[in-house]
Amino acid sequence: MSAEEIRESSEAYPMKGGDGPNSYAKHSTYQREAAESIKELVTKEIAEKLDIDLLLPSNALHIADLGCSVGPNTFSAVENILEAVQLKCQSQGLTNPQIPDFQVFFNDHTANDFNLLFKSLPQNRQYYAMGVPGSFYGRLFPSASIHLFHSSYAIQWLSGVPKEVVDKNCPAWNKGRIHCLNSTDEVARAYGAQSAEDMERFLHARAKELVHGGLMVLIIPAGHPHGTPLSHTVAYLTIHLLEASLLDMVRKGIVSAEKVDSFNLPLYSMSPQELEAVVEQNGCFSMETLKTLPRVLSDDTVLSAKQFASHWRAAFEGLIKQQFGEEILDELFDLYHKKLEEELSIVKPRKTTSFLVVLKRKEN
Amino acid sequence: MSAEEIRESSEAYPMKGGDGPNSYAKHSTYQREAAESIKELVTKEIAEKLDIDLLLPSNALHIADLGCSVGPNTFSAVENILEAVQLKCQSQGLTNPQIPDFQVFFNDHTANDFNLLFKSLPQNRQYYAMGVPGSFYGRLFPSASIHLFHSSYAIQWLSGVPKEVVDKNCPAWNKGRIHCLNSTDEVARAYGAQSAEDMERFLHARAKELVHGGLMVLIIPAGHPHGTPLSHTVAYLTIHLLEASLLDMVRKGIVSAEKVDSFNLPLYSMSPQELEAVVEQNGCFSMETLKTLPRVLSDDTVLSAKQFASHWRAAFEGLIKQQFGEEILDELFDLYHKKLEEELSIVKPRKTTSFLVVLKRKEN
Repeated sequence: MSAEEIRESSEAYPMKGGDGPNSYAKHSTYQREAAESIKELVTKEIAEKLDIDLLLPSNALHIADLGCSVGPNTFSAVENILEAVQLKCQSQGLTNPQIPDFQVFFNDHTANDFNLLFKSLPQNRQYYAMGVPGSFYGRLFPSASIHLFHSSYAIQWLSGVPKEVVDKNCPAWNKGRIHCLNSTDEVARAYGAQSAEDMERFLHARAKELVHGGLMVLIIPAGHPHGTPLSHTVAYLTIHLLEASLLDMVRKGIVSAEKVDSFNLPLYSMSPQELEAVVEQNGCFSMETLKTLPRVLSDDTVLSAKQFASHWRAAFEGLIKQQFGEEILDELFDLYHKKLEEELSIVKPRKTTSFLVVLKRKEN
Repeated sequence: MSAEEIRESSEAYPMKGGDGPNSYAKHSTYQREAAESIKELVTKEIAEKLDIDLLLPSNALHIADLGCSVGPNTFSAVENILEAVQLKCQSQGLTNPQIPDFQVFFNDHTANDFNLLFKSLPQNRQYYAMGVPGSFYGRLFPSASIHLFHSSYAIQWLSGVPKEVVDKNCPAWNKGRIHCLNSTDEVARAYGAQSAEDMERFLHARAKELVHGGLMVLIIPAGHPHGTPLSHTVAYLTIHLLEASLLDMVRKGIVSAEKVDSFNLPLYSMSPQELEAVVEQNGCFSMETLKTLPRVLSDDTVLSAKQFASHWRAAFEGLIKQQFGEEILDELFDLYHKKLEEELSIVKPRKTTSFLVVLKRKEN
């Protein structure tokens, strides 16, 4: 293990910390609903796929949640996994002294608000909680030390914006846009390549850290589901309308066009095919499951523009502040909120899909 | 493992966080000097006492620093241990692939500034760093999961003030004083009993967490060395003068006498004999080493009242703020500084002693 490997290996895009009105802790309803709706699925996956024998030599089951943010979703996800493992142990006839202790590692960037995370830990938790600062695109744990990785709505965050899209001399320069969504093929390719490279680094690190036979459960948002009009997707709502709001502010002279030209969201939703290709190339994991999750927002859900705007403000605020300064935040997100309201009055409900991936560390 | 065991099992007395002018991070010179002066001793202890065979089945050596605060002393202590272990491995003919990875757990109260700790982690560290929130008087880790515990100048902090000393109806009521130093025998006994009980809880938890044959290295300040006049001790400088400063403020009408009556420092320095008694009663550890450390401040050291006052302000500020309010802090510590200057002009140098304890987890 080299110091190089351990060092922070990507930029940090922390969710807004604290627990104020615009914090991520208060506005991750969307992810929480997703977590609830997939709870049963994850339980079933663990029941079917987790090899209890690999735990028996250990004193404790080591679970790591990658990109945990500040809660509370991370805690409910972890409790769900713990329950699933306990059920599996009991179903195999293990009794209490044989059921191992649980050690849970909560990982996120160093800039994450770990103080808040630690203060929010459930009082009655049945596990030993640890915080692990650092980018999951590099090594975080000793070799073969984790039995189960979990990551929910985190690996769509790239290690950084692809260099080409902010380079004026490059065909992939993303002038006047903030993402590859609805942009040129060159920009889409640059994002895709960055995502593939990041995912390869992610799998390379996890392959070393996961015990042979260990599982990795990933929940990944699907960007632009095949066959859905762009304007019907959540990606459109979140990214395109943010871009439109920024461009409105350029027209008003509040934000400079150059600042928008050099601003891009380091987000990319891999398609199942892209993911499969990277997993195959890496070679250390077998793909046990790859399934589309039930839609987070059912047809009956009235999607509130306010909730939505607050949620995405919590997610994007840090990035926007860094590029444009704190003073534009309120006006920008007011504008964003209005655009969301307009859009939602025209097309609803949105098609929001995610997929569940279960990878198993090969024995070789 | 019960939820009860995991839950925070004592009150928190965090060192002042952040890295402002009065922060602990900036004012732990005293501990750092101590750490430097004992570096060689600890290396020698590890070289002699650490059983390398117990590491061989592990993927990584698990080290925990208990009461780590916010650094930087915790990092230099950990690096020193790592070096010592590497030397020991090399001296036994182990080569690089056989030398295990290092996983270091930094523990302190949940109220500790882990965000600052994580941001300060050395960039070129050769270990995987984890933060573990919670009181070390309760369980923090799974059974038999740690190879080496380290704790420096932390276990003199009690889990709380003994109840008797704040009970008006009790013979141990500590009216007009803030500590057992120079108080009645009843108060001294109440502090001693609390310390013994806390130490028993500490050893009970560590006995479960340490692998058999694993080591625990403790550095403990000695309170009132036998045969030294009280006024020549560092304890006198730190505690008695703080008490005197508070009483001055009572006389001035700034602080109420009742508030001082109900305020006590949850600090107690065990004597070597008291420690030996608790270790023997616990029964899980053999006492490998118990030695007085070289004096931290040599006869040549000019002890600056300013440094001293800043150091102790960082350590006590949180407690004092909680009892008396933030508004008295500057005046109190100005007064304290003046008293320190007066004292240091009369008696110097101070006799400052600590001791080094190495315990080994018995095999049974």
